[in-house]
Amino acid sequence: MFKRVLIANRGEIAVRIIRACQELNVETVAVYSDADTDSLHVRLADHAYYIGQSDVFESYLNGTQLVNTALTAKADAIHPGYGFLSENADFAEMVTNAGLTFIGPSADSIRRVGNKDAARAAMLQAGLPMAQGSDPVKTSEDAYRLAEEITYPVMLKPVAGGGGKGMAVIENQTQLMNVLKRIDISADDYYIEKYITDARHIEVQIMADHYGHVIHLGERECSLQRRNQKILEEAPSSALTPGMRERVGELAVLAAKNINYTNVGTIEFLLDKKSGAFYFMEINPRIQVEHGITEMITGIDIVRKQIRIAAGEPLNIQQEDIRIHGHAIECRINAEDAEMNFLPCPGKIGFYHQPGGPYVRVDSGVCAGSTVSPYYDSLIAKVIVHGRTRGDAIRIMKRALREFHITGIKTIIDFHRQVLNNQQFCSGNIDTQFINKELII
Amino acid sequence: MFKRVLIANRGEIAVRIIRACQELNVETVAVYSDADTDSLHVRLADHAYYIGQSDVFESYLNGTQLVNTALTAKADAIHPGYGFLSENADFAEMVTNAGLTFIGPSADSIRRVGNKDAARAAMLQAGLPMAQGSDPVKTSEDAYRLAEEITYPVMLKPVAGGGGKGMAVIENQTQLMNVLKRIDISADDYYIEKYITDARHIEVQIMADHYGHVIHLGERECSLQRRNQKILEEAPSSALTPGMRERVGELAVLAAKNINYTNVGTIEFLLDKKSGAFYFMEINPRIQVEHGITEMITGIDIVRKQIRIAAGEPLNIQQEDIRIHGHAIECRINAEDAEMNFLPCPGKIGFYHQPGGPYVRVDSGVCAGSTVSPYYDSLIAKVIVHGRTRGDAIRIMKRALREFHITGIKTIIDFHRQVLNNQQFCSGNIDTQFINKELII
Repeated sequence: MFKRVLIANRGEIAVRIIRACQELNVETVAVYSDADTDSLHVRLADHAYYIGQSDVFESYLNGTQLVNTALTAKADAIHPGYGFLSENADFAEMVTNAGLTFIGPSADSIRRVGNKDAARAAMLQAGLPMAQGSDPVKTSEDAYRLAEEITYPVMLKPVAGGGGKGMAVIENQTQLMNVLKRIDISADDYYIEKYITDARHIEVQIMADHYGHVIHLGERECSLQRRNQKILEEAPSSALTPGMRERVGELAVLAAKNINYTNVGTIEFLLDKKSGAFYFMEINPRIQVEHGITEMITGIDIVRKQIRIAAGEPLNIQQEDIRIHGHAIECRINAEDAEMNFLPCPGKIGFYHQPGGPYVRVDSGVCAGSTVSPYYDSLIAKVIVHGRTRGDAIRIMKRALREFHITGIKTIIDFHRQVLNNQQFCSGNIDTQFINKELII
Repeated sequence: MFKRVLIANRGEIAVRIIRACQELNVETVAVYSDADTDSLHVRLADHAYYIGQSDVFESYLNGTQLVNTALTAKADAIHPGYGFLSENADFAEMVTNAGLTFIGPSADSIRRVGNKDAARAAMLQAGLPMAQGSDPVKTSEDAYRLAEEITYPVMLKPVAGGGGKGMAVIENQTQLMNVLKRIDISADDYYIEKYITDARHIEVQIMADHYGHVIHLGERECSLQRRNQKILEEAPSSALTPGMRERVGELAVLAAKNINYTNVGTIEFLLDKKSGAFYFMEINPRIQVEHGITEMITGIDIVRKQIRIAAGEPLNIQQEDIRIHGHAIECRINAEDAEMNFLPCPGKIGFYHQPGGPYVRVDSGVCAGSTVSPYYDSLIAKVIVHGRTRGDAIRIMKRALREFHITGIKTIIDFHRQVLNNQQFCSGNIDTQFINKELII
């Protein structure tokens, strides 16, 4: 096991990784920018190093600085968390070249899943179901012809994109024309894909060691999104039958094995509500924000496993040992004003009291007196509940959110309350357009 | 189901009951003394009523005032929590006579288990194993003779006692003589019982509805005590084999059935470490401080069940449905100075940040700015963790305690750290004298 891990991140995920390290008896090295001098992750770590100005390019995206800090701090591994450099193959390579362990998949794997076009080709070959799509388009004429062939609605997707960035849903030729006026497709950067309406976003958590052993921990339902950003997640999905669960799990393991993937990761699928068919979307080669709901229903600490795998330990658990208990829901607590189009609301937190009691978990990156900086993501905490059933989990979440008391900044807690009180949501009738259709004013 | 429940308590257990009510869609009525005007339970409840001065006799022990407040507030039930009036049969009767539901066993049951002598006789008759004991002693001569018969060490126990109050371990005749100089035994108030050395305190959680259905939720290990006050509890007990677990569970159900017990309760046993024999101690006719560890390993919300049972619902779960998952530990966070003989340390809390993250639950009665009053119990919060194994739970608890940050008052968090680092504790080699033998300076 590692002696000392540098965490190249901040906020709640840095805190989450510190917790895992402490439970593994591994020392932790936090890094911080000017804006994070007093942040919770800095207080909780064993060691803390200043890495630069608040601007992300000067600090959390400065790979050279991070690797040098790890060497200075005598860390033997770097955990990238999510976001920032977590999916940057060059950074992973730089870490490895410096003689340190990158806690994540190999640089090669990150590259392979990062190029959406190549990843699609590899997965299609391995037999994963795929929404009808094109090769990269070169000209406007190409684009019109391919869109007609595939039939509208389609999506124009960046080959190198991820997390929903830069995607556009296109209903007809006029819309496509308008989009093509705004972007330059000549550099082979975009491809066209059939857009599945009434789809649910289903993703599968996988764990893969360095000895060819790959298992999955069931699915997460992440259909509740706003502008392709997940906002509330749950596990398991109320849309899946046991047969579908088994099938999508097998597909996820197949996808991971197909590219010799190691460490933890997520295989994202779209589920066509009408046909029940799954379509492969992409692989997220990192720990995800919403990993905690899977931890609740399986009893498996994914971040600890991630570190153990990176340290070379074989997975000591078989697929048949994975049991799903009850139902978990996560609400992301963002410092945003839901009534002002989710405008980020940085500021200084005054009073802070997080919910507690039975079956409630809070992963927070802040405490009383913390400053929520305008420089970084607005996610400040996650409330995760674990109920015996979905209805039970909804009741516990409503109770927990009622208790969450933060002054000094605005948060989307009230918005989550609206979701939890929505009849369609409570009956499980959701899809990726749910928030737009039902809740955005 | 009830429409509105008055909670005749304060602190963390009042908060716990409010949470259960909210999840059941039941309105809550908090009560408060002068000292509790700003307390967390008052803030979280739907309604709050002032009931009197800080002195417990003027407020939380004032049964008439509590019942009148419930009537004024149009509550239809009273939850007594633990301590205060929770085991007072007259209060339970007063509540029922006012046309309200007492959320607990019947006044009659409380009386039967409250008289230790009668309870022992009833349990002996039902076939429960019992440490050799006497009828109430009347004279000193009686006491000497009975102690010789039973053989030293013995305990002189008050017939009406509970929770370890007023008990004395007596090693020989000289000690007995000294004790008899201090107390008056002539009023039939005391009896003598064989003292089991090297014993573990094992208790079984039971639930019994109004239709004769009684189940148990496994045992809790509560051997870590200081002056008969539990300080750290865990479930399941590392001392029990599956066979012993089954046996003590059956004994607990037998005990409850024997007196037609309803609602939730705990049957306490001593386990003789050498022989493996269980001895019935007493029945606690109320929710207990340490109920949360059982909630973690069974997934069953005991307080919600307690309220449902009181509302007349039949138990909808069978004994064979109860499954134990992993291992839970609770550390009681008392506002006491462990280095000053656990002297209570009231005061005003400044900064307060409770631990979070995976598999950690906090039940707290305080928040930043709370005043810990000298009038009441020093228990301010409970940290409960849920691990896959006992070793895992210990690791998570150590991490969680490291995160718990409270300023302005002293707490026993550091003392718990000592326990968790103790080799004997880690190997599971504990008994009721462990803290005295290993940790008290």
